[in-house]
Amino acid sequence: MTEKGSLIVLSGPSGVGKDTVLKLFLERYPDCALSVSATTRAPRPGEIDGTDYFFISRQRFMELVEAGEMLEYAEYNGNCYGTPKAAVEARRTAGQHVILEIEVQGAMALKQRGEQAVFIFLMPPNWQTLRHRLEKRGTEAPEVIGNRLCIARDEIGQAPEYDYIVVNDDLDRCTDQLHAVIAAAGCRTENMSAFIQEVIEDAQAIDVSDH
Amino acid sequence: MTEKGSLIVLSGPSGVGKDTVLKLFLERYPDCALSVSATTRAPRPGEIDGTDYFFISRQRFMELVEAGEMLEYAEYNGNCYGTPKAAVEARRTAGQHVILEIEVQGAMALKQRGEQAVFIFLMPPNWQTLRHRLEKRGTEAPEVIGNRLCIARDEIGQAPEYDYIVVNDDLDRCTDQLHAVIAAAGCRTENMSAFIQEVIEDAQAIDVSDH
Repeated sequence: MTEKGSLIVLSGPSGVGKDTVLKLFLERYPDCALSVSATTRAPRPGEIDGTDYFFISRQRFMELVEAGEMLEYAEYNGNCYGTPKAAVEARRTAGQHVILEIEVQGAMALKQRGEQAVFIFLMPPNWQTLRHRLEKRGTEAPEVIGNRLCIARDEIGQAPEYDYIVVNDDLDRCTDQLHAVIAAAGCRTENMSAFIQEVIEDAQAIDVSDH
Repeated sequence: MTEKGSLIVLSGPSGVGKDTVLKLFLERYPDCALSVSATTRAPRPGEIDGTDYFFISRQRFMELVEAGEMLEYAEYNGNCYGTPKAAVEARRTAGQHVILEIEVQGAMALKQRGEQAVFIFLMPPNWQTLRHRLEKRGTEAPEVIGNRLCIARDEIGQAPEYDYIVVNDDLDRCTDQLHAVIAAAGCRTENMSAFIQEVIEDAQAIDVSDH
């Protein structure tokens, strides 16, 4: 029996190292996959349809939204981005855990809608490390950096809303912990109630006084 | 920094294979240890004090109980058995996850008392497998087997009260899942609130408008 994979929602402040963690993580753990988003923007050179994104028209995008076929979606710079349910379900049915790497706001919207997912927040080991990384990134004007720090602080303020906190103090340890959290998710009692019920019913069908 | 290990409460019906799973598990994962119980019964040949049990007098046992120094305790066949808090705490402080292998009733008592622990229930892959194992065990009278099945059925009925269900379908898989659940426990948001608070306070101490 192939068990259905879990839906994993992963967020974390800008600068925490999500991309580096995910790159190593996906190499190490082929039982997990990153969800592929749909977008209305044009493919860039080298981008592959179905791997980097599903490139679709705005009309098709809106049809999927209206049919309730997008897990979540948002618009940036005039382009739409979203997560098609069907692609996520296909991977989960094949037994893979599917990771949705999304912003805090999108994650909280999914949670409030009661979406059955494991919500994981990636944290820096401390504020100083995150600040240092955000300050070093590029050569932006001080107000751009200030704005970035402000957003990161607000995002960390939402961390208590997530189910699990994984700290990116050491890349190896972080990827292993991330996998433990995902592997453990399938064992949470609320995900096992149908199985428990089945065993109890089988046990009740047997008249133990036969012995 | 050595992180404090978690307290793990493990139960499962008789015949589910707890001893076999734990033996392999403890060999594989030295970051976990089985808690050592205290008992008032006399040591049997080959039993080592502090390894198999802490062998103590009934008077000392009762002093520990009265001082609130036993996590849980029970009496069987005129002997007392209990889990001394101090030994559990010492291992946890050293960073090990300590496993308490106890009966459902004792586990539920710990839970109702609000003990901060991860409650894991070990399940058979199905009722038939468990029944078969219990029927094959020894050459007891039918009513003894019937009684055993009845107890196992009642214990499984309490499984929904646990945090996690780990299925012993395959020994390798089962030990790995057990470890994932234990490793993930430390990442649960309720165990990380002090850390999150610290990062948020550090972030607030910095006036981001400085930039």
